[in-house]
Amino acid sequence: MRKVAIIGVGLSKFGERWELGLKELMAEAGLMAIQDANISSHQVDAIYGGTMSPGRFVGQEHVAALLADQLGFHNIPATRVENACASGGTALRQGFISVASGIHDIVVVGGVEKMTDVPLSDATTALGGAGDQELELSQGITFPGLYALMARRHMHEYGTTEEQLASVAVKNHDNAYKNPFAQFHKRITIDEVMKSKVVADPLKVLDSSPISDGAAVAVLAPLEIARKFNEVPIEILASTQASDSLSLSERSSFTEIKATQIAAKKAFEQAKVSQKDINVLEVHDCFTIAEIIALEDMGFFKKGEAAKATANGETVLNSKLSVNTSGGLKGCGHPVGATGVKQAVEIVWQLRGQAKDRQVSNANIGMTHNVGGSGATSVIHIMKRAD
Amino acid sequence: MRKVAIIGVGLSKFGERWELGLKELMAEAGLMAIQDANISSHQVDAIYGGTMSPGRFVGQEHVAALLADQLGFHNIPATRVENACASGGTALRQGFISVASGIHDIVVVGGVEKMTDVPLSDATTALGGAGDQELELSQGITFPGLYALMARRHMHEYGTTEEQLASVAVKNHDNAYKNPFAQFHKRITIDEVMKSKVVADPLKVLDSSPISDGAAVAVLAPLEIARKFNEVPIEILASTQASDSLSLSERSSFTEIKATQIAAKKAFEQAKVSQKDINVLEVHDCFTIAEIIALEDMGFFKKGEAAKATANGETVLNSKLSVNTSGGLKGCGHPVGATGVKQAVEIVWQLRGQAKDRQVSNANIGMTHNVGGSGATSVIHIMKRAD
Repeated sequence: MRKVAIIGVGLSKFGERWELGLKELMAEAGLMAIQDANISSHQVDAIYGGTMSPGRFVGQEHVAALLADQLGFHNIPATRVENACASGGTALRQGFISVASGIHDIVVVGGVEKMTDVPLSDATTALGGAGDQELELSQGITFPGLYALMARRHMHEYGTTEEQLASVAVKNHDNAYKNPFAQFHKRITIDEVMKSKVVADPLKVLDSSPISDGAAVAVLAPLEIARKFNEVPIEILASTQASDSLSLSERSSFTEIKATQIAAKKAFEQAKVSQKDINVLEVHDCFTIAEIIALEDMGFFKKGEAAKATANGETVLNSKLSVNTSGGLKGCGHPVGATGVKQAVEIVWQLRGQAKDRQVSNANIGMTHNVGGSGATSVIHIMKRAD
Repeated sequence: MRKVAIIGVGLSKFGERWELGLKELMAEAGLMAIQDANISSHQVDAIYGGTMSPGRFVGQEHVAALLADQLGFHNIPATRVENACASGGTALRQGFISVASGIHDIVVVGGVEKMTDVPLSDATTALGGAGDQELELSQGITFPGLYALMARRHMHEYGTTEEQLASVAVKNHDNAYKNPFAQFHKRITIDEVMKSKVVADPLKVLDSSPISDGAAVAVLAPLEIARKFNEVPIEILASTQASDSLSLSERSSFTEIKATQIAAKKAFEQAKVSQKDINVLEVHDCFTIAEIIALEDMGFFKKGEAAKATANGETVLNSKLSVNTSGGLKGCGHPVGATGVKQAVEIVWQLRGQAKDRQVSNANIGMTHNVGGSGATSVIHIMKRAD
């Protein structure tokens, strides 16, 4: 197994990008990544494209081959992967495997979702495809409803408050305010979150990530040749993935995501680092409660303590652990297939020292955490500036 | 890179399986494969699931994690891949890469599609997602229409006749008649094909593969440990994939699938065999013309000669080259995500000598060819009974 590095990254502006289609979003991010990596299109050996529901959002499947052609990578193996909202992270892991194994050298990993071409109700229905149709959605629960159950149980077991959950959204909007690629550039207050419309009690609209268009791209290469392309390659120290039942009803706990616990444990082992070594962390905050549960499941806080810590400012920019400096899914936006790759793009910028107003001062090792559905998939990466 | 073998296979009955859902179809094939491989569920390290449009057919994405849970593989990495009708072949290739690389040992590869829960018109629309929405489908052409353009051009350039195309369907129904898993157990004649309803001139309904439900599963292991599980492991000698533009309008030829040409060339190189070494071949006959073009693109016949050869009986069971002994997509059925894995299942049975009434007498080396859309993806595998 070879060591793998990220040699280039690109991102489209996230948001309601009505002027652009799926192909154009991908081109916006892809051309930026290709330039950043200093490669020409004929050097690319394979592409992995993560996207959740392009069939339901824009009537288009077979997206990886489409993107390969759009980006000028002629006739290379092109593979779409899908694990609901963890599609981007999964694409990154498949790209990692293909380079680490020696099967491919230069691999482009893309994530994309074009969600705003359908009515909001159709988008919500499509997102429900991340949960178990037979056991959950067809019984009437919505996708936000699944996370509301988790939030309610977390409040019951650990005394977590709605205000503490709101502090996740406030922090992530603060970070997004400093990110030119973010969907929202508007700071919000605890009071505004608390007074926002209820989506699925206790979760409100400002506890929830938005419907977004966007794309993100990373270019991978074997570490041994990475400096030919980029002076500051970012090494992927760990790439792990785990699964669980889609349906909450089949799990032993509503306040833990077992897939995250397993993937995180393996990632720390693979990278030979521990929680205290991580300086900058992108977690999957599709809802505020998701960030809290993730921080606990990954071992950054004891179970039941992350919400209080967040409310105390222990995860804000340039605190001990800077969490979701991009603005997270909440502030930066959540084009579902793009999110996992966007997390990696943010960590690359942080580790290179290119994050400008939101730069973490001691960014040495970074981590990403990308979840599918209500926790049936979890994908984790740990990265470091190559020595 | 380690050598990789298939140690177990399973198949659901293909057809209109109204009594079964997506999960049950997968269980039918999956449990058969697990038994065939003599493994217990806790030995499985990862699963790759190929499926094209479960979101549009049954409202369900995130299918790999669902299948992992359904088959009792708890918490393993579970990854859905999608390349339209080549989703199954792509899953097999990703499984191959993950075992060859040493990242995983025992890997389950599944393909599934549940297509008959929606009206036929919705199914046709969903299948259109395999082509380019912007440049093709939204302009009014149907998916069969794309292959009709190819057929018409092939007829124009090479004098191929509708009767010769029909002979593909007749042969494949003959083979399906002998396959208990096939959707159709009804022999047809050239005359019946010629008189069947026109779908997209010159292609008729009996030139076309049907709408089907079905699942197929293969279990992979490193060859070095394969005999612990199965006395007759089938080695994967080559696993290749290539892509092309989705849109026909961007290609230089309508009578060649460049992705197939490239993937086949690489596969023969990788396997260190040539066309004359292949005894049994499953090709992607979504329409009769597709089988003709594939046989030519893979170098089994010169361009323009495969239709005449097929009409002359040169590809029937136990001729020089037995093509689509399973019945192909036309006779066996085409649950799109399952097809690529089903092709591998058929080759495994042939190479083991378990194909009963449709056994190829000299089956030593077999090959599969799985296409996405109108040729934007092609995935090829070459297999051999391990020495």
